[in-house]
Amino acid sequence: MAGDATVEDAAVQDLGARAMAMIADLARHTDEPGRLTRLYLSPAHAACADATAAMMRDAGLGVTRDALGTLVGRREGPTPDAKTLLIGSHIDSVVNAGIYDGPLGVVCGILAADALRGEDLPFALEILAFGDEENVRFPTSLASSSALAGDFRPEWLDGTDADGVTLREALVGFGCDPERIGDIPRDPARTLGYLEVHIEQGPVLEARDLAVGVVTAINGATRARCIVDGMAGHAGTVPMGMRADALAATAEMIALVERAGTAARDAVATVGVCTVEPGALNVIPARTRFTLDIRAPEDGVRAALVEEIVSGCRAVAERRGVAFAEERFMDQAATAMDDTLVAALEAGAARAGERTLRLPSGAGHDAVAMARLCPSAMLFVRCEGGISHNPAENITAADAGAAVRTLVEAVRVLARR
Amino acid sequence: MAGDATVEDAAVQDLGARAMAMIADLARHTDEPGRLTRLYLSPAHAACADATAAMMRDAGLGVTRDALGTLVGRREGPTPDAKTLLIGSHIDSVVNAGIYDGPLGVVCGILAADALRGEDLPFALEILAFGDEENVRFPTSLASSSALAGDFRPEWLDGTDADGVTLREALVGFGCDPERIGDIPRDPARTLGYLEVHIEQGPVLEARDLAVGVVTAINGATRARCIVDGMAGHAGTVPMGMRADALAATAEMIALVERAGTAARDAVATVGVCTVEPGALNVIPARTRFTLDIRAPEDGVRAALVEEIVSGCRAVAERRGVAFAEERFMDQAATAMDDTLVAALEAGAARAGERTLRLPSGAGHDAVAMARLCPSAMLFVRCEGGISHNPAENITAADAGAAVRTLVEAVRVLARR
Repeated sequence: MAGDATVEDAAVQDLGARAMAMIADLARHTDEPGRLTRLYLSPAHAACADATAAMMRDAGLGVTRDALGTLVGRREGPTPDAKTLLIGSHIDSVVNAGIYDGPLGVVCGILAADALRGEDLPFALEILAFGDEENVRFPTSLASSSALAGDFRPEWLDGTDADGVTLREALVGFGCDPERIGDIPRDPARTLGYLEVHIEQGPVLEARDLAVGVVTAINGATRARCIVDGMAGHAGTVPMGMRADALAATAEMIALVERAGTAARDAVATVGVCTVEPGALNVIPARTRFTLDIRAPEDGVRAALVEEIVSGCRAVAERRGVAFAEERFMDQAATAMDDTLVAALEAGAARAGERTLRLPSGAGHDAVAMARLCPSAMLFVRCEGGISHNPAENITAADAGAAVRTLVEAVRVLARR
Repeated sequence: MAGDATVEDAAVQDLGARAMAMIADLARHTDEPGRLTRLYLSPAHAACADATAAMMRDAGLGVTRDALGTLVGRREGPTPDAKTLLIGSHIDSVVNAGIYDGPLGVVCGILAADALRGEDLPFALEILAFGDEENVRFPTSLASSSALAGDFRPEWLDGTDADGVTLREALVGFGCDPERIGDIPRDPARTLGYLEVHIEQGPVLEARDLAVGVVTAINGATRARCIVDGMAGHAGTVPMGMRADALAATAEMIALVERAGTAARDAVATVGVCTVEPGALNVIPARTRFTLDIRAPEDGVRAALVEEIVSGCRAVAERRGVAFAEERFMDQAATAMDDTLVAALEAGAARAGERTLRLPSGAGHDAVAMARLCPSAMLFVRCEGGISHNPAENITAADAGAAVRTLVEAVRVLARR
């Protein structure tokens, strides 16, 4: 028993070390010296895709690239009509990014495919490396994964980057043929499901001392801009009882946002922006502008929370004699993960010796687009301090290893169903 | 009786109309076309002083100018050793000012002197038109009135305006001799007191439907800059219970400032500035910077209020796991008005048929400096919407008339003591 445990630990260590080395290798490809920035269809994206393709080939996969630059590493199924299990994530990044957001999932998929070499599977396996998850360069939304679900919007091709280059031009420059985008959509009937490993980008797993967690849903989000209009006045001469202080009213609203967000199940509610006009030490604030960002894994919970917050803000405004206006500019439904795949990831984690936790994802992922194609699920990996979109983003080799082993075991669970 | 009332009303109307015409006349003198800006020692100040001097002479006053440009319109006393009653305000303005802030008090003084012509008074009378009350041009503090109290600071002469002109140079250009500033201080033993009429710059008299009010004290003020340091985080991925949201903490502090300020007697407490870092919709606020402006007519009340607010903010920070730091950069004592002069103004108002109210002044005035020389008191005049330091500043002719008649009657009350 003790001997077995040691062998297993060594295997985890080895998988983890390999994952970390591969991620570090991909991180060398950046559009900016001195920091990691790898935008969709940039030279760094091309170089990173080449390196990823080499890793896929090393794992025994046949590599192709679709018309949007998504890299596909395929292991054929036992029969031509076998379904395909997709595993993927993205290799583009934000500006001044961390190295794990995206590549971790691609590398875990490749290592899982490698670990499963020679093992019989009743389905084909594909490892996907999407290129347009962060949507930093062009005005798109998960373009490369949406295309698999048949949701690529043709008008995206005419969108331009900061230099005026259209997506169409950038695709051609990347060696892709935009005319072939129509070939990308997959047949849902032949697609078994989609699994994605990703860093958590939050602090929950670290706080619970868990290497991995299973995502139940990707939160829906409502965003709004709010304006409170009070009345400016001399901070020395207008008595407290005669004020219509926009900031004091806003403070009460922010407290209400926090209170309601805390009370609603698995939800978060944030005021990230708050500006004050005129913003002078001795002038009673006349106006504030603030934002609402409200997310929850259940749309009903989110809708009720938004209603509670907005009607609460209106009531605060009315009682205080200030005006309140809100403009909602995003209302995005939650994406539920597939029960069977969630259970497979949990069973996989158990077989890999990992305790897990079910948690919602507060951030968006390619899985949002893929869930429109096929059953989807995600495995989150603990990241240091919950930090992401930041060079300080960090995970441990042991946790990367745990993620690969969980993924391998989950595939085995699915294979035996 | 009805006839008397009509005569009296007509007299009030007439005084009011004269006051309004004189103020409008002074308002023609501005440094900027299209709006009123009359900075200390500017060409507009010189022209306005000339016009004011002419009004003083029309009221039978002998006009001199002191070494800081303060215009002095004097009616001699019955004997060479008679004390002097001072009445004044200022003729400089802020940038883009209203026309009543300052000139109203000077004009009321001149009209009162005119109304009292031929009447025996046991004291000399001086109408003062100060030039440096707003302290916009040079880094001074009530320089022209402070000089009468012997508080002119020699280093002020080396202070410069935005163009690098020193106060000393500006005085010389204005025709003043800085070497004679030492002649300005008055002998307290020979000074009966100082009365100042001024627009309220607040909404209290309007709300109480009163033309005039008597100031009990000019509020002391404490000002501080505060910083709250929390922890940034992804607005979607950090659960509510794991946040150290600097803005949510600040909202609780702002609510506390308002609550404590409302509870403290005659006090006001304002957060006029609040900035958020990083200030992004989807990032939990890491830091806020806000200001405190706390004023009260009683220093003990103000000190207790400051302590309550600062210790309250510290407690909020501690409970929420954020850091709170405050830097106090102003702690200015309140200036009590003189009981005898307050009573004289109240008696004067009653004789003029005006109901009054006692109220503190939230803004500073020349009376703060003059109170260091002699007993001082102020009469506030209702202004529309409490608006000042703004071209929309407005008063009625009837209220201006009520102020002049109150002032005249107050001087008569003092004369008969």
